[in-house]
Amino acid sequence: MTKHIRFTLDLEAPPTIADGSGKVIYGTLEGDVINSATGQHKLANVRLLPPCSPTKIVCVGRNYADHAKEMGNAIPTEPLIFMKPPSSLNAHGGEIIYPSLTTSISYEGELGVIIGKRAWQVPKEDWEQYVLGYTLVNDVTARDLQKKDGQWTRGKGFDTFCPTGPWMVKKEEVDLPSLRVMSFVDGEKRQDAPVTDMIFDLPTVIHYITQFMTLEPGDLIATGTPPGVGIVEPGTLLRVEIPGIGSLENRLIKK
Amino acid sequence: MTKHIRFTLDLEAPPTIADGSGKVIYGTLEGDVINSATGQHKLANVRLLPPCSPTKIVCVGRNYADHAKEMGNAIPTEPLIFMKPPSSLNAHGGEIIYPSLTTSISYEGELGVIIGKRAWQVPKEDWEQYVLGYTLVNDVTARDLQKKDGQWTRGKGFDTFCPTGPWMVKKEEVDLPSLRVMSFVDGEKRQDAPVTDMIFDLPTVIHYITQFMTLEPGDLIATGTPPGVGIVEPGTLLRVEIPGIGSLENRLIKK
Repeated sequence: MTKHIRFTLDLEAPPTIADGSGKVIYGTLEGDVINSATGQHKLANVRLLPPCSPTKIVCVGRNYADHAKEMGNAIPTEPLIFMKPPSSLNAHGGEIIYPSLTTSISYEGELGVIIGKRAWQVPKEDWEQYVLGYTLVNDVTARDLQKKDGQWTRGKGFDTFCPTGPWMVKKEEVDLPSLRVMSFVDGEKRQDAPVTDMIFDLPTVIHYITQFMTLEPGDLIATGTPPGVGIVEPGTLLRVEIPGIGSLENRLIKK
Repeated sequence: MTKHIRFTLDLEAPPTIADGSGKVIYGTLEGDVINSATGQHKLANVRLLPPCSPTKIVCVGRNYADHAKEMGNAIPTEPLIFMKPPSSLNAHGGEIIYPSLTTSISYEGELGVIIGKRAWQVPKEDWEQYVLGYTLVNDVTARDLQKKDGQWTRGKGFDTFCPTGPWMVKKEEVDLPSLRVMSFVDGEKRQDAPVTDMIFDLPTVIHYITQFMTLEPGDLIATGTPPGVGIVEPGTLLRVEIPGIGSLENRLIKK
């Protein structure tokens, strides 16, 4: 399995690098050694970035029946689409900042899909040719603000609220039907479900989104979270894990 | 008043040009002559693009009391924030495509604010230093899908649903308190209200958004629509006008 990473040699760089400063390097990781166009680097000497640079982060809400139920919602009959802003992106190892505006933060472990070519009105049977690969997403949510606002932009849109990574694995190396999405809170398992439990599978989701929105290369789809979400306190270590892809760790910090 | 435009010499280019093909040129327009780093061009020989290239289009819902009322909604006590995707951008003169998924399209004329420098937790009194200038936005909405979905991403997010332009006027040349936002449907006035009717003024909106989301240079804020929205049919010519800035025309076309 080849781990495709994005990184910078600037250890002080923010975990998103949205300023187009040109310091972003693409490479592959083997053990703790990175191979890239700029030569070999030790993982300890770089700063990981999210594995893609999306123009849009498109998310599917309530895409696992038991999660819809645990939140007291009906099981949807169509995919429920919302967006997180690119400014919310965070890398593996980056701190999730606990905002003073909320008192109820939840993790939501999800399978992330990275788009490989421009996609518009994709027939279900063609979905896979538009996918470059897979990663992990933690759709961090301020549950109180999500409910209060109605629109989810603020509750799910804070800076650092979209940890993504640590790397991308290309679709050719992923056995999609066998994947399980898991989350751990300070090492204790809280979510664990097969991606086959999704109400709307990837062909349906990509078809549905591209009926109204053109997806660009590098765009990210967060495919929904399984049951087991819950409120966590500052200081908590959150881990999303999908065996066969990787493990995404971020600590929740109050500043 | 200097009209700052973005354009391409490729007349076949899509009105958004999201593919980073490097064909985008910045210039100023005087009469029908464009001055740019690539020399002088006749307006008729170029394709106008939206005047900015936002990483995010951040919108304020229900920001005029009489519009909130006409939609049967309570007057909000905090700004209601949502996003349109960059893929929905459309230029002055570009066709708005009427999707087969909807039967009720509305225009929403709005003042657009273009961000000039990275903005995070901006104090109200400092708001103006983060603004580069102003433009016009038509927040085209599939009203039936907006209501059905709950989240507004699809109803407001179709490709071509965010006409923006035709140009930007820098803040130094705009007398903000004197502006009026108007919309015309086939030449007939439907919306006309002073921006001073906004429930949440620009200092409040920029302060509020940057409490959770970092704004980047080029990001676009659509500041809400005044009363007078309504359903329009395919073939309609929609015009948003703000005297002192410009006039944004787009025809709604069923394909």
